[in-house]
Amino acid sequence: MLNIVLLEPEIPANTGNIGRTCVATNTRLHLIEPFGFKLNEKALKRAGMDYWKDLDVRTYIDFEDFKRQNPGAKIYMATTKAPKVYTEVRYEPDCYIMFGKESAGIPEEILVEYKENCVRIPMAGDIRSLNLGNSVAVILYEALRQQKFAGLEVTGHLHRLSWE
Amino acid sequence: MLNIVLLEPEIPANTGNIGRTCVATNTRLHLIEPFGFKLNEKALKRAGMDYWKDLDVRTYIDFEDFKRQNPGAKIYMATTKAPKVYTEVRYEPDCYIMFGKESAGIPEEILVEYKENCVRIPMAGDIRSLNLGNSVAVILYEALRQQKFAGLEVTGHLHRLSWE
Repeated sequence: MLNIVLLEPEIPANTGNIGRTCVATNTRLHLIEPFGFKLNEKALKRAGMDYWKDLDVRTYIDFEDFKRQNPGAKIYMATTKAPKVYTEVRYEPDCYIMFGKESAGIPEEILVEYKENCVRIPMAGDIRSLNLGNSVAVILYEALRQQKFAGLEVTGHLHRLSWE
Repeated sequence: MLNIVLLEPEIPANTGNIGRTCVATNTRLHLIEPFGFKLNEKALKRAGMDYWKDLDVRTYIDFEDFKRQNPGAKIYMATTKAPKVYTEVRYEPDCYIMFGKESAGIPEEILVEYKENCVRIPMAGDIRSLNLGNSVAVILYEALRQQKFAGLEVTGHLHRLSWE
């Protein structure tokens, strides 16, 4: 099972959306406090739609707590500052992909500990950035693609157009 | 230049977000009416952030108008009903990827015209779906990956962590 980690997420609609993406992909979501919202907030549930109740979600009081509870976790750090592109690494089936808060990303004091595992999404120009939920979807689906979407329905048997 | 086409989008925040993704990837956005919002709506601009003004966006009164103004366009249709997975096709550098409205997707009368070009994003279970903006980001970045992110900054020269 893949793991998405959000470090101090600020915007409830983003976390809700990411929760929906995690449910749709059998991915576990890890949320590291402080949050910019309450976990029972309406905006979060609205973006997560009715999927939030099906979400495998764990929360932590800080990054140290996360590391303690997930010993030996192979963590990739998504950051605009990474020299490596997100498609250049091979994601293990049980790895973790971490994203920082919307306004600031992952702090450098954490990034330096994970130099080899920092990845970035190519964008036009230096000042651009994707929405956090989109960034999660892009890297998560690259990891799933590499793993041939194992565990997700891909045979197409249930996906016939009615004209077939 | 890649092209994203939204057929009758309903939710302004989604279109705003997709506009932001398009700006970040030098992608042209095509919007086919009717919309569920006004193009000057605050929610759309907020989700698009300050990027909307930099967006290459074209609008059409209906799908026929779109086809007339984009003759010979190679169009891929994103639909949960497609037998083919989105990673199975080879996206041309100037192709179009079309998405239907949030509530209903692309109508079957259009899909039947483009049988060979329908693609779907694998998900766990039949009832799940990704947010529209996330679906766009996932397929668009797969097309960009196939094209080795040509035109986007990928050398990493501008993306050094300060500890390097």
